Amino acid sequence: MIILTTLTQVPDFAVGFVRDIRIRWALEEAGLPYRVVSVPPGNRDYRAQQPFGQVPLLQDGSVRLFESGAILLHVGGKSPQLLPQAEQARADAVSWLFAALNTVETVTYRLFRLQRKREPETSRWHKDVQATLNKRLTQLEQVLQKSEWLAGTFSIADIAMADVLRLSAQFGALSAYPACGDYVQRATARPAFVRAYQDQLAHFGHNAAIEAAVEM
Amino acid sequence: MIILTTLTQVPDFAVGFVRDIRIRWALEEAGLPYRVVSVPPGNRDYRAQQPFGQVPLLQDGSVRLFESGAILLHVGGKSPQLLPQAEQARADAVSWLFAALNTVETVTYRLFRLQRKREPETSRWHKDVQATLNKRLTQLEQVLQKSEWLAGTFSIADIAMADVLRLSAQFGALSAYPACGDYVQRATARPAFVRAYQDQLAHFGHNAAIEAAVEM
Repeated sequence: MIILTTLTQVPDFAVGFVRDIRIRWALEEAGLPYRVVSVPPGNRDYRAQQPFGQVPLLQDGSVRLFESGAILLHVGGKSPQLLPQAEQARADAVSWLFAALNTVETVTYRLFRLQRKREPETSRWHKDVQATLNKRLTQLEQVLQKSEWLAGTFSIADIAMADVLRLSAQFGALSAYPACGDYVQRATARPAFVRAYQDQLAHFGHNAAIEAAVEM
Repeated sequence: MIILTTLTQVPDFAVGFVRDIRIRWALEEAGLPYRVVSVPPGNRDYRAQQPFGQVPLLQDGSVRLFESGAILLHVGGKSPQLLPQAEQARADAVSWLFAALNTVETVTYRLFRLQRKREPETSRWHKDVQATLNKRLTQLEQVLQKSEWLAGTFSIADIAMADVLRLSAQFGALSAYPACGDYVQRATARPAFVRAYQDQLAHFGHNAAIEAAVEM
């Protein structure tokens, strides 16, 4: 049995964006049954399982993994439809998985942090982050103008990248990048994402938010 | 033949820290022969191979990979001494590889950015980054007080984590975290790291720096 660990509760701004959604999404795509358990934020015992106290954590039989990227790779290993078998396509998927989490998420996270701390858009750091983000989105735009999915067919790389870009989309940062915006739309229109998203909202008890999402 | 691509030149502050060092290090550890080629920064043709124009890039026979994490995983797949075979140890190595590049590097990169732009240490953002970094280092310190290497034996996770922490060490950020400091020291004392480091310095033409490093 696959057991996915998330938190019991998170601040309102995080609901819908907790990284367990990446794993729910992958497991829904793969059609693998799983159970969700949760730990209270700051739980000390949990640190023995996850050194940074973060979620998600995955227990699959006797194997335990942490970090959404590592878990996505594990789920991909169980599901050829999420991680291509052909050598170059597989290399592309893994390369893009790391690109999403290291090259792109690094800067979207910085923007998120500035937004959340209400740093003025005219400030030095806002401009610095915006310039880096625009550079990355311009590069990504060129790729996504030519590709439906990053590694040819839909893969774990798209789960990571679309989820990372979803945060930028929320800030309106994708408005000048239509191919990136379309990519996020077609990724999040997949039934597996919709189920994962609704499940996360339900988990954190946001029923009003679920209704809004359904009508979206 | 394995071909590693790096840049022809980088600004002085980056010499010794260009991410090709992670791959040189892994290949030296694995004892795999390789050749280094380089592209000028901003080369347009290179973007067809690496969508963000970044290095490193690895060509291994007919397979091409980008992102240091993806390349480390690939080299680990060729070298059992860098990626344990036992299921849980392997899961640990992959989890820690992502932790280094997503959880820890995200914040060390932010600190690097602030330092390089000479943001005052008393500023709001410097304090914000320092607080996040201290939290991560405190958590890591507890792990490294009990473990020589992150996944039991030395692995690709240690190459990524030690290289990420090496940047923090340069800023003096590890002085309050002796287990982290010792970890970086024992990792970078490995002959494979020393060769990789000297090769990178030589590649970028810093012969004076090589002499200093040898005496270090």
